[in-house]
Amino acid sequence: MKTIDVCLSPELLPLYSLEDKTVVVVDILRATSCMVTAFAFGAESIQPIANLDECRKMKDRGYIISGERDGKKVDGFDKGNSPFEYMGDQVRGQKIAFTTTNGTQAIEKSKQAREIIVGSFLNLSSVVRYLLFSRNNILIVCAGWKGKVNLEDSLFAGALVEKLKNHIEPDCDAPLIAQNLYNQSKSNLLGILETSSHVKRLNRLNIHKDIAFCLTEDKYHVVPKLVNNSLVC
Amino acid sequence: MKTIDVCLSPELLPLYSLEDKTVVVVDILRATSCMVTAFAFGAESIQPIANLDECRKMKDRGYIISGERDGKKVDGFDKGNSPFEYMGDQVRGQKIAFTTTNGTQAIEKSKQAREIIVGSFLNLSSVVRYLLFSRNNILIVCAGWKGKVNLEDSLFAGALVEKLKNHIEPDCDAPLIAQNLYNQSKSNLLGILETSSHVKRLNRLNIHKDIAFCLTEDKYHVVPKLVNNSLVC
Repeated sequence: MKTIDVCLSPELLPLYSLEDKTVVVVDILRATSCMVTAFAFGAESIQPIANLDECRKMKDRGYIISGERDGKKVDGFDKGNSPFEYMGDQVRGQKIAFTTTNGTQAIEKSKQAREIIVGSFLNLSSVVRYLLFSRNNILIVCAGWKGKVNLEDSLFAGALVEKLKNHIEPDCDAPLIAQNLYNQSKSNLLGILETSSHVKRLNRLNIHKDIAFCLTEDKYHVVPKLVNNSLVC
Repeated sequence: MKTIDVCLSPELLPLYSLEDKTVVVVDILRATSCMVTAFAFGAESIQPIANLDECRKMKDRGYIISGERDGKKVDGFDKGNSPFEYMGDQVRGQKIAFTTTNGTQAIEKSKQAREIIVGSFLNLSSVVRYLLFSRNNILIVCAGWKGKVNLEDSLFAGALVEKLKNHIEPDCDAPLIAQNLYNQSKSNLLGILETSSHVKRLNRLNIHKDIAFCLTEDKYHVVPKLVNNSLVC
């Protein structure tokens, strides 16, 4: 039986072997939710970039540049980190260069994996289906908040473990902790997230609407995948 | 209001400031459970030692030497890592040098803290009382398993957060995750632990009795504290 494990913070990645894994990178608030939304609205590709200056340079190469630090859009960038900026015709057929506080760093640190896909509540069932058909062992990499474990990414990891439970075997205790958390909270994800430190931080930025949206399950059916350093669908 | 935070793995310790903290080190299976038991039975001091060879040398200085690696007693050592080895008159008035896979390493890595105490279910209420009267902010350091997050230490962290909830403020999301886990599991700690990877590992070593004992709340009333590199009571 395939195994599933959860890395609750990118700081713990050195403890995991990545070579045989399909890694699911998760940054619910809001990087991976934005990425999934952009592909649902026809973006051509998203290049995750860990460094702010490198991302800025992509503008001259025809990319939309998207950047967030500490929850706020970066000055001079085309877009920030709200999924509502990636809807309608704004991104159709476009290449996007994307840098965020946590999500794009998590992708960067996972690059030794056999393959990397992007997960969010918005494409939960599509990710589940993808993983069911993949032959690789699974590692969910939670982006967290500046290295620390966070509630929303752990909840999503728990949702994946729960939905895959009849087909995979937990490799360690983190999947059990996440699954337990999700099962207790699934009827009121928004309510439990109101207690999280990151949401308190984001509420100060007045993005309650974003948060509710990022917790919506199965709105889209895309599974972004990293190919030659760019996410494509 | 004082804050409480939970470091789910010693690998994440560099993300936390320790200087203003009372650190509670936790290694439920079984290092901190052994330490608490030894003090309840009159041990004079316990010197946590990260390194096996250094620990071995303490024999010539009159110490009882206790050592465990991968759950098993180390050859040539006086004692292993079962709390039942630290009962009766075996340790009364004795100095113990103690090295384990995870617990003593967690103490070593926490040494910049303002103070370090040792927690386990066996002395849960005494630790709660100690923390209520301390003026410092609190950081619970889970020893985990070789850097990975584990269920039993997370459960204990959750128990502390739950029992202190009216007097302290969570500093981040890890306390909420642990509290949630404990609240859902407290009526059947042994049952939920049966699913954990470490317990499966330990069950192979035939120590079911140890595990049940280590989950007993409030058997003892000691709070071991690190003073000059040794734990005393």
